[in-house]
Amino acid sequence: MGNTIVTFGEVIMRLSPPGNRVMKQSHEMEFFFGGTELNVASSLATMGCTVRHISSVSDDFVGESAVSFIKSFGIDTRFITKNEHPLGLYFLEAGSSVRASRIAYNRLNGSFANMRAEHIDWEKALDGCEYFHWTGISPGISAAAYETLKEGLKTAQEMGIHITTDPAYRSNLWKYGKNGSDILKELVSYSTLFIGGVNEINEILGTQFSSDQQGFIEASKELKEQIPSIQKVFDKIRIGVTASSQQTQGRAWVHDQYFETELLEVNPVVDRIGTGDAFAAGLIYGLMNFDDEKALKFANAACAIKHTIPGDINYCSAEDILEVMNGSSGGRIKR
Amino acid sequence: MGNTIVTFGEVIMRLSPPGNRVMKQSHEMEFFFGGTELNVASSLATMGCTVRHISSVSDDFVGESAVSFIKSFGIDTRFITKNEHPLGLYFLEAGSSVRASRIAYNRLNGSFANMRAEHIDWEKALDGCEYFHWTGISPGISAAAYETLKEGLKTAQEMGIHITTDPAYRSNLWKYGKNGSDILKELVSYSTLFIGGVNEINEILGTQFSSDQQGFIEASKELKEQIPSIQKVFDKIRIGVTASSQQTQGRAWVHDQYFETELLEVNPVVDRIGTGDAFAAGLIYGLMNFDDEKALKFANAACAIKHTIPGDINYCSAEDILEVMNGSSGGRIKR
Amino acid sequence: MGNTIVTFGEVIMRLSPPGNRVMKQSHEMEFFFGGTELNVASSLATMGCTVRHISSVSDDFVGESAVSFIKSFGIDTRFITKNEHPLGLYFLEAGSSVRASRIAYNRLNGSFANMRAEHIDWEKALDGCEYFHWTGISPGISAAAYETLKEGLKTAQEMGIHITTDPAYRSNLWKYGKNGSDILKELVSYSTLFIGGVNEINEILGTQFSSDQQGFIEASKELKEQIPSIQKVFDKIRIGVTASSQQTQGRAWVHDQYFETELLEVNPVVDRIGTGDAFAAGLIYGLMNFDDEKALKFANAACAIKHTIPGDINYCSAEDILEVMNGSSGGRIKR
Amino acid sequence: MGNTIVTFGEVIMRLSPPGNRVMKQSHEMEFFFGGTELNVASSLATMGCTVRHISSVSDDFVGESAVSFIKSFGIDTRFITKNEHPLGLYFLEAGSSVRASRIAYNRLNGSFANMRAEHIDWEKALDGCEYFHWTGISPGISAAAYETLKEGLKTAQEMGIHITTDPAYRSNLWKYGKNGSDILKELVSYSTLFIGGVNEINEILGTQFSSDQQGFIEASKELKEQIPSIQKVFDKIRIGVTASSQQTQGRAWVHDQYFETELLEVNPVVDRIGTGDAFAAGLIYGLMNFDDEKALKFANAACAIKHTIPGDINYCSAEDILEVMNGSSGGRIKR
Amino acid sequence: MGNTIVTFGEVIMRLSPPGNRVMKQSHEMEFFFGGTELNVASSLATMGCTVRHISSVSDDFVGESAVSFIKSFGIDTRFITKNEHPLGLYFLEAGSSVRASRIAYNRLNGSFANMRAEHIDWEKALDGCEYFHWTGISPGISAAAYETLKEGLKTAQEMGIHITTDPAYRSNLWKYGKNGSDILKELVSYSTLFIGGVNEINEILGTQFSSDQQGFIEASKELKEQIPSIQKVFDKIRIGVTASSQQTQGRAWVHDQYFETELLEVNPVVDRIGTGDAFAAGLIYGLMNFDDEKALKFANAACAIKHTIPGDINYCSAEDILEVMNGSSGGRIKR
Amino acid sequence: MGNTIVTFGEVIMRLSPPGNRVMKQSHEMEFFFGGTELNVASSLATMGCTVRHISSVSDDFVGESAVSFIKSFGIDTRFITKNEHPLGLYFLEAGSSVRASRIAYNRLNGSFANMRAEHIDWEKALDGCEYFHWTGISPGISAAAYETLKEGLKTAQEMGIHITTDPAYRSNLWKYGKNGSDILKELVSYSTLFIGGVNEINEILGTQFSSDQQGFIEASKELKEQIPSIQKVFDKIRIGVTASSQQTQGRAWVHDQYFETELLEVNPVVDRIGTGDAFAAGLIYGLMNFDDEKALKFANAACAIKHTIPGDINYCSAEDILEVMNGSSGGRIKR
Repeated sequence: MGNTIVTFGEVIMRLSPPGNRVMKQSHEMEFFFGGTELNVASSLATMGCTVRHISSVSDDFVGESAVSFIKSFGIDTRFITKNEHPLGLYFLEAGSSVRASRIAYNRLNGSFANMRAEHIDWEKALDGCEYFHWTGISPGISAAAYETLKEGLKTAQEMGIHITTDPAYRSNLWKYGKNGSDILKELVSYSTLFIGGVNEINEILGTQFSSDQQGFIEASKELKEQIPSIQKVFDKIRIGVTASSQQTQGRAWVHDQYFETELLEVNPVVDRIGTGDAFAAGLIYGLMNFDDEKALKFANAACAIKHTIPGDINYCSAEDILEVMNGSSGGRIKR
Repeated sequence: MGNTIVTFGEVIMRLSPPGNRVMKQSHEMEFFFGGTELNVASSLATMGCTVRHISSVSDDFVGESAVSFIKSFGIDTRFITKNEHPLGLYFLEAGSSVRASRIAYNRLNGSFANMRAEHIDWEKALDGCEYFHWTGISPGISAAAYETLKEGLKTAQEMGIHITTDPAYRSNLWKYGKNGSDILKELVSYSTLFIGGVNEINEILGTQFSSDQQGFIEASKELKEQIPSIQKVFDKIRIGVTASSQQTQGRAWVHDQYFETELLEVNPVVDRIGTGDAFAAGLIYGLMNFDDEKALKFANAACAIKHTIPGDINYCSAEDILEVMNGSSGGRIKR
Repeated sequence: MGNTIVTFGEVIMRLSPPGNRVMKQSHEMEFFFGGTELNVASSLATMGCTVRHISSVSDDFVGESAVSFIKSFGIDTRFITKNEHPLGLYFLEAGSSVRASRIAYNRLNGSFANMRAEHIDWEKALDGCEYFHWTGISPGISAAAYETLKEGLKTAQEMGIHITTDPAYRSNLWKYGKNGSDILKELVSYSTLFIGGVNEINEILGTQFSSDQQGFIEASKELKEQIPSIQKVFDKIRIGVTASSQQTQGRAWVHDQYFETELLEVNPVVDRIGTGDAFAAGLIYGLMNFDDEKALKFANAACAIKHTIPGDINYCSAEDILEVMNGSSGGRIKR
Repeated sequence: MGNTIVTFGEVIMRLSPPGNRVMKQSHEMEFFFGGTELNVASSLATMGCTVRHISSVSDDFVGESAVSFIKSFGIDTRFITKNEHPLGLYFLEAGSSVRASRIAYNRLNGSFANMRAEHIDWEKALDGCEYFHWTGISPGISAAAYETLKEGLKTAQEMGIHITTDPAYRSNLWKYGKNGSDILKELVSYSTLFIGGVNEINEILGTQFSSDQQGFIEASKELKEQIPSIQKVFDKIRIGVTASSQQTQGRAWVHDQYFETELLEVNPVVDRIGTGDAFAAGLIYGLMNFDDEKALKFANAACAIKHTIPGDINYCSAEDILEVMNGSSGGRIKR
Repeated sequence: MGNTIVTFGEVIMRLSPPGNRVMKQSHEMEFFFGGTELNVASSLATMGCTVRHISSVSDDFVGESAVSFIKSFGIDTRFITKNEHPLGLYFLEAGSSVRASRIAYNRLNGSFANMRAEHIDWEKALDGCEYFHWTGISPGISAAAYETLKEGLKTAQEMGIHITTDPAYRSNLWKYGKNGSDILKELVSYSTLFIGGVNEINEILGTQFSSDQQGFIEASKELKEQIPSIQKVFDKIRIGVTASSQQTQGRAWVHDQYFETELLEVNPVVDRIGTGDAFAAGLIYGLMNFDDEKALKFANAACAIKHTIPGDINYCSAEDILEVMNGSSGGRIKR
Repeated sequence: MGNTIVTFGEVIMRLSPPGNRVMKQSHEMEFFFGGTELNVASSLATMGCTVRHISSVSDDFVGESAVSFIKSFGIDTRFITKNEHPLGLYFLEAGSSVRASRIAYNRLNGSFANMRAEHIDWEKALDGCEYFHWTGISPGISAAAYETLKEGLKTAQEMGIHITTDPAYRSNLWKYGKNGSDILKELVSYSTLFIGGVNEINEILGTQFSSDQQGFIEASKELKEQIPSIQKVFDKIRIGVTASSQQTQGRAWVHDQYFETELLEVNPVVDRIGTGDAFAAGLIYGLMNFDDEKALKFANAACAIKHTIPGDINYCSAEDILEVMNGSSGGRIKR
């Protein structure tokens, strides 16, 4: 087993009017490539990790641009396939203060949704892999994505790889005839590390735990009870939010112990998308380099600093994140 | 009487350096079309109302662009005339934090100022009209605008239309030899609904009421005493402002009763222009759909959310505004 | 029968890197709304015609923006429906000189492709209609679009409406299992005016006429022979093209007579998309206002001037086009 | 008499949609300061001359920005006054190829139009002056501008200053009740150097000379006959123009001798505005530094190179212009 | 002695990705000219003072642009020399909230670093000078800059000019083999007014005073003890900073008396660079126009308002600053 | 010997005002990374070759961005070192038509100039290498660059690698005390393939051959005579240039045979920089895939199409280039 981190998921394009404009006021769009698992991959690569991303993109200049972007992080793209369907994308009208952000998706018939499981040789794709990361988005997109992922998880489990999951349930997915909760539960059962909280557990198990500390502990216990492969549960909480300000905090249930981080405040929020992915990347990096508690603090700092960067991806180095973790308020200029 | 809302007023172009730049630092300008009454019209049309706007624009490609913009809301533009004078415009250097915004106007010799009263057949223009809205800006621009408006108000009064007014007095207008207070008082006397507060009442009546709750009530009573056509008084208050943050609140004196809304906080302020117009539009929409108290709450929420949108116009739907009214902090992403 | 022109077709969004950049060099996209039939509609509305466009857009802020854009021309949008599928779009890398332009489409599973024929009451939709315009793009997108269009054509034929068609065959469409040539022939059989040339006729009839004048005349004769509803054939030719320069010419076969226009040269070409649609709009306008020969000259001038305008749509007035038709070289400034 | 060049004229702001867009397609405007006489002043200052500009600007941040811009050339701005009227401006939709450019003005009620003759102490303003330059635009704007200019011309004549004029007649000016031809003739009578051709002479004298070489010579003779103060006539001709390409040539009638320059071709044209002013500046610089024939060649090269620079002003050094004059095709990179 | 203020220092170019982007996300840079002493000069010129700046720039179009920019303030640039080395510059990634800003310099081998002392005739350069301002940046750049400055200080001292200094020590300078503390101490000994606090004094004297009020007073006493030419010590303090918010305060030790200003809060911070220079400029203006306490208050207000302006330079007038000093919160629009 | 292509040279940043603006008219710069050898590397990688680039960049976020950019092509960056000196850069004012482009460099004290030869293990760096490419720019920058390159050339020669050179002599380099001609001759003596023409040969050999066909043949013979390692000579010629149009042609002297390509015309030229590098990359690709004559044709087509792409790098695929080579005029849209 090597030290490569493998991620699997859609490469998606974000299109957004500049500034605080609504789309009707715009003649141009800023665009960013991202995707929840690619965001994790990119952040880990930026921190110096060896990373491979598996996906399927469009066989046109849009797909080429996406792959070129992924390569710019030094991520291994050899297992990204191409097909004749268009790259998934979404439009974002970024909110501000009391105005919420709005997203319109165009992803359910794209190149990722139409991937072909047989195109991925999972044994080769997971060669040298220490961590395999997946999220609840992928299996919600299409049956093909679900089946491909499941194949990967089986292989990874057999190879004894750490499997981390952010099993977010999104109600605007799951249009292909499967029950999201059932499938997420099935796939989580291959995983060893759960990055999620009470909502996610309730969704998967059909439980109704409360979201306070006690609820989180009970939910985590129940999760481990029902899905024994899960070794650790890490959760991020957001408090006191408007579209322009945010407080972040991490908490965890590991080896029958609860711990949590301090609150970090971010004001103003530059970009809210991908902050959960920054948390996941920070956590994986932390687990590879620190103990569990420091890993959680690092993850929370990574989540906080991502709020200051436009686009889906956390461009910060581990050193930048450590500074935030150690209390830097940002009010200096590094010359 | 139909359910059309008719507005009358200048279509004005805003030109503004991008970001927080001062003009000396800029080589380009963002531009927006607006105008206090058009802002009301556009917001109402966005919320689904049937709206007609009456104005006079330049007979060149600038005027054509303005009309095209107005049509994009589905607003009826058949009563917008054209003449050989240039479209009114203003330059805005947007402030920030402790730095105030600055405006330089170029409107006193424009196409609206030079409109010809005889070009508007008010009976046709008000056909099907339920609400007619005007503000104190129009009569301050030129004698022609004043006379045209007065003609419209007379006709509307005869037709039994609700007449709403935001009779703001601006000292940088009224250059054509008339006394603003006198004329505003005259025109308010045709109106049924007063959108304004102590300052406006003092200006019109020559009184000196204080701006606290008691002062507002007494001023409103005095207004109704002197101008019996006024049935209701609705006021917006702004508290604790810097150029980048704002608290908004509504209060009203209706049927000898005082009521007020909660405070709403907006931070950061994206754009301060047109927030009063968003209030007026919210109020008219509210009065057409809710009771007076809910209408005021809706108007206050409309005012708050407008602070998050660049340009003069509130692009939010009634649903968006209801969310703010019902306490949404904006910290979600609507997918 | 009124004088309304009705168009039917997809509303599509174009996304394009600014300047001559390729997508890999860009972080932003300019966007334009268009669509071959909407381009015809918009140009006709700009020239002062009464126009109605029929389509189906996404039920999200992207679709709303598209409808708002269409309204800005004063086009009647009441027959544009909404559904839960995303708006069709395409990416364009604009070429230059020896470098060809490239397009990547995302339209085959969009809101237009998923329209529902039963949602359009064609008798109402064609009320007051003098001209109904369709192109070969629509039936190539999906079975639903084909069937909806066919329904419309039947109704229009029964109502005695002029039916104009630009039956372009595009090989990157027709993925839903139908033979494009067969269907185009079927649909052309409802039409009265054919805007196309030898290529289109060969495609539909399976013939192999040459593209010179003699071939055009023979192909036109054969077309009228096989499809007697066709009264007139109008064609545009492009000569000597690079990505940055273009010559345009019109020719026609009407009442057993051939005529053609002078060549018009455009250098540099600002935008090549929508120039055929500008020709079609110019032709329809011309037929409504001039004799056939002048109509063709007007159409050719409209085609030429569109090459100077970014985006899909010809923003020029009839007066602007007449100037080009009458030999203006563009080297003046109109003050 | 010193070597200062004094210019008098409006400072005007140009607002223009970016690229080839029409205004309806834009949300922003590029802006430039200019004005026909200021363009001459700026070009001369860029070439190293001592220059003073006399004007009146708005007393707001727009006027301040204009003055700051003028200062950036090192031009003496001490005789620029301020008043409460807005700065003159115009909107430009730049044409391309067969599409002509369009301009919409807003200048007839601005700060220059409302200048006060008594605010300029012409003896001081012309102190140290060798050349005084004026154009036919200024007296067309308002009676005040006309009278102020006339006062300046009288003083300059008395001081024995060279007076150069580009007496262009613009039909969209002269709205204040005076006959343009009469006034231009009156003002030209103070001048010593005529920068204009057959059109200008016909306009002023009411003659009908043809624009060929013979006509130019006869017109020049007639001009000198009727207005003996004129010592030299210099003319620029434009041949074979589209909105995107241009040929320029200079010709002159000096001391009863005709001479002309070679043709210079510019393709593509970046900006057509201010090319005549670049010619005038080149001519004045040439007359101060070279003989008459070389001055004309220099002026023609200055005119040509200005076509490659956006905005109203020729930013090229004398060395840059000499290179064009000496046949440089521009196809090198100066490292 | 006249009333000219003379500044000496590098003209440096700032290049910065737009918005909150990191450089990897950008294809373009905003640029600004500045430089700590030029920032002081520009602010003073904007407030109406007579200012001369002494520097050395590159002999290419970059240097020309810089000089043109400086001229736009009306600053006397006759003593700015040119040489064949490139203009100094730096890249800035602007931080936000918890993310600190980052700067990468390219200045140590530029035109200022390579200036030639013998190229400046200091007696002429200081002719008419009342205040001469220098900072600790200049002598840190190169031996040449140090020696040129020292020469200027000697001359200024002999001429009895007020010499103000902001002797900031920057560890990323001083690469040419000299000890920064020693040299700063030497140069401060020519100065009469010290704009700096405990950090600067400790750096120069090798002391370890604390940064509280008591420490500031003791440090100031010690400074005056060791460097008797210093008559007054003015300090700015920053409290409670993130990259997006700031509190500013001024304090002083003058004639054995301590005084301080109120705190001013700025939120959000638009730009942090040049706020110390705005303080220095405000102080010099204040000392020329007010008493010492009011000068300090004015300086603190100037520092606060600069935080709202992008770029290195404070574009505010004295009137703007007085409004902030007198408590304006910025929440108005000045029409 | 593998099939890797190794390039060695500076990574340089281009900063350029947008559009046709001169720097004085700009507040922002577009930037591109490039460098003559990196341009060759990037183009080859885009065409699918395995490429490694060797350089030294700044140890800051500018250098990181450059490396990230290089990675986006999939180029191996493991042999790019970092040091504390800034990344080299240049400013470009792009010309147009008769106006020439201007460049101002800042590279002579940058990270590449200050590289340390001992930091490169050339045997490892050239592992698997088939072609090693260098140009005359590198040894002109600094003694360190010269020595490092010479070390690499020796090693490559020993390893039997094909060594290609574009030995351009630039007079604005060679400031470190060496004679450019001598050193270029020395370094060319290690090379096997000469990409250059009469100018380069004359520069190196001190000869004075004419640049016509006969001169080229004689110069090539003389070159092979004096430097027998040279096996083939390939040259590109540019004819009839302005800043906006260009004709390109290739010619060669291989195995005592002369051949040349057709002329290709590019109008308008989007970007002139890097077109020679596109030729070199096309040639190397051609030699690896075609015969010599076809390789030259391919190189010429690559050179032509690069003129249509902004920035230093040719983003075209081999397929794109083949189309141009086979006569495509660019006037199509590839859907």
